[in-house]
Amino acid sequence: MLGRENAVSVDEARDLLARHIPAKAPSVEKLEIGDCYKRVLAEDLYSPEDLPAFSRSTVDGFAVKSSDTFGASETLPSYLNVRHEVFMGKETLFGMNSGAAAKIPTGGMLPEGADAVVMLEHVQAVDESLIEILKPVAPGENVISAGEDIRRDEIILKKGSLLRPQDIAAIAGIGLKELSIYEKPRVAIISTGDEIIPPGTPLKLGQVRDINSYNLAGLILENGGEPVKKGIFRDIYDEIKRAVEESLRDSAMVLISGGSSVGIMDLTAKIINGLGLPGVVFHGVALKPGKPTIGGVVNGVPVFGLPGHPAAVTICFDVFIKRVLRMLTGACPKHFLERKTLTARLAKNISSVHGREEHVRVSIEEREGELWAVPVLGKSGLIRTLVLADGTVIIPPHKRGLQEGELVEVELF
Amino acid sequence: MLGRENAVSVDEARDLLARHIPAKAPSVEKLEIGDCYKRVLAEDLYSPEDLPAFSRSTVDGFAVKSSDTFGASETLPSYLNVRHEVFMGKETLFGMNSGAAAKIPTGGMLPEGADAVVMLEHVQAVDESLIEILKPVAPGENVISAGEDIRRDEIILKKGSLLRPQDIAAIAGIGLKELSIYEKPRVAIISTGDEIIPPGTPLKLGQVRDINSYNLAGLILENGGEPVKKGIFRDIYDEIKRAVEESLRDSAMVLISGGSSVGIMDLTAKIINGLGLPGVVFHGVALKPGKPTIGGVVNGVPVFGLPGHPAAVTICFDVFIKRVLRMLTGACPKHFLERKTLTARLAKNISSVHGREEHVRVSIEEREGELWAVPVLGKSGLIRTLVLADGTVIIPPHKRGLQEGELVEVELF
Repeated sequence: MLGRENAVSVDEARDLLARHIPAKAPSVEKLEIGDCYKRVLAEDLYSPEDLPAFSRSTVDGFAVKSSDTFGASETLPSYLNVRHEVFMGKETLFGMNSGAAAKIPTGGMLPEGADAVVMLEHVQAVDESLIEILKPVAPGENVISAGEDIRRDEIILKKGSLLRPQDIAAIAGIGLKELSIYEKPRVAIISTGDEIIPPGTPLKLGQVRDINSYNLAGLILENGGEPVKKGIFRDIYDEIKRAVEESLRDSAMVLISGGSSVGIMDLTAKIINGLGLPGVVFHGVALKPGKPTIGGVVNGVPVFGLPGHPAAVTICFDVFIKRVLRMLTGACPKHFLERKTLTARLAKNISSVHGREEHVRVSIEEREGELWAVPVLGKSGLIRTLVLADGTVIIPPHKRGLQEGELVEVELF
Repeated sequence: MLGRENAVSVDEARDLLARHIPAKAPSVEKLEIGDCYKRVLAEDLYSPEDLPAFSRSTVDGFAVKSSDTFGASETLPSYLNVRHEVFMGKETLFGMNSGAAAKIPTGGMLPEGADAVVMLEHVQAVDESLIEILKPVAPGENVISAGEDIRRDEIILKKGSLLRPQDIAAIAGIGLKELSIYEKPRVAIISTGDEIIPPGTPLKLGQVRDINSYNLAGLILENGGEPVKKGIFRDIYDEIKRAVEESLRDSAMVLISGGSSVGIMDLTAKIINGLGLPGVVFHGVALKPGKPTIGGVVNGVPVFGLPGHPAAVTICFDVFIKRVLRMLTGACPKHFLERKTLTARLAKNISSVHGREEHVRVSIEEREGELWAVPVLGKSGLIRTLVLADGTVIIPPHKRGLQEGELVEVELF
């Protein structure tokens, strides 16, 4: 029963992985900014220019010297002469002295000498070239100054930023067309099992189709990796070893999926141990589902041996693989922004075994405006339980269960 | 001041859109299942076969007739004869009578006549062909029966499902290779403004680069649409009208971005009204930022006129466009699973104007284990405020502000 009796805790397993997987910057590629959504920035990004390059009005109105408007009111307006107009997209070539105003559209370039804009609403025209200002403006009011948004040479985004729509927009705004981006880590998926057949092959009795590689590929894609399916291999030492060896050469992480029986998991552990140091770092975790999981590192590359039950694959990915993959992408997000959770009331008592972290699949239902987490019952070998579930509730190892009606945090799929 | 004085509320604006945008199923395409992650299923999916196709063991052990084990214990074991072995991936051709047991691996096919599996741990070998059963098993114990996961002709996923990794895995499990998928809705982005230049063009004073189309394209991608940039157009009625007209022919939604001044927004409204019915359904919303927003529908196609301020673009997308886009994708998710939120303590008092829904950008900070939402100050014309923010806090129209220390719900970007 190797590894089952001396299972480590989830935290210990995570620590072992963190201790043995070396920090290593991914390779870098150059990409057009339009291809960089959801990608990870590989450089600290400094602005090559001021944004905006000139002081702009944020309203339709009249550019003025603010000091000319101090004290102005509806009963005692300031009178200003209008000699010029600012046009959108054109450089404003005239300057302004005290007593003058210039018509300006939203986004227009402020004339030299002006330091604020009075909104149209607070202006009354006396004639073609004379206006009344009915309300004072402060210096800088209704203006975005040159460089106020982003200053030249200012750092705008840090290495490791996961680029969002607004980040790409800011980068477009400062005139950059290409970025240094971390390449997506390639994650090899090795499916094993004498009974597993690829989709499209007619099914004989005793055989089942490859389910887990489709689950893993999707999870890898969602988390910033590039899945590489290596194929389905028989439960033979040399065959699987050759597949892992080849994968270690061209992948940032290797997932061996399909073992469930003790014999197969031992075979997987032996292969990992035979390929490089430190080899297996844990074999068996106090986790349900996912107990037989193997975590290993071979010459710096993380290698996981995953139990074959579909639910175990999803939970192991969530508990271990996801955070390793995130590290391999080079992204440094605020960790608390990564979790997608929801608070709900538990619809049923759940018991659990003390000393083991249990992940219970739940579907979320709305009943009279309140959200309820309804446990999805069924063996962890059933893929359907995952299809019916919206997420999981985690019962920590020190608890023996959760009570109906309790508020629980659901980690959404 | 058309549309500014008679601004509608956010809820009224949403109702107007819902009332005027017709429900219309998107076009359908056939895709390989490996290309269907995050796509929307265009058909109710029935299983063509049982999963599994045969009864399988979920453990390493011995297949038995459960009735032969009733009453068995360590002191009084049941004795069973072992004449056969089950092999992985092979059809089990022998049957079993009372008094017999067959060695079976995890995943192996149960012999005819067996109805349960005794785990290896509860078996002791007497000799080559005789074993002691030390613990009884119930009928069906350690077995997944034929069709127990998914039954033939059972509905497995409904039309409108947004396909997750586990859904694709289940589909692979029942042998399907292709799916009917809704095509992604094409969303036209029309950038307008005499001062806007494309990236790569040298910047002259008075000009600014196109920022908003990069923000919108990313938001559209994230929400299941296909952004189609139509280019940058001058603020001339005929030019913009022609671009909108062309977009209406090949797009499921049209976004006109860039207007901020009253004149430009009125131009946009006039164009929308001139192209078909009902035309503009609202012009001006009690929303900050995003007040000048125009919502329209032209012959069934939603058309939005968006203010040019970057923050307004993001908020308008969040408040209006996202839900319209989701509808156009054909997806029918549980709405409460769609929001990515986080509860945090507000780090500063914020005041707001009664009667207006305000969206305040915040960054999230962890202080002594607690999450704080720190308002990002700055004009809504600044793209940097969006880069610094992790999400928004919404102040509803009936409130006049929020207090420092209050618990708030942050909608994460």
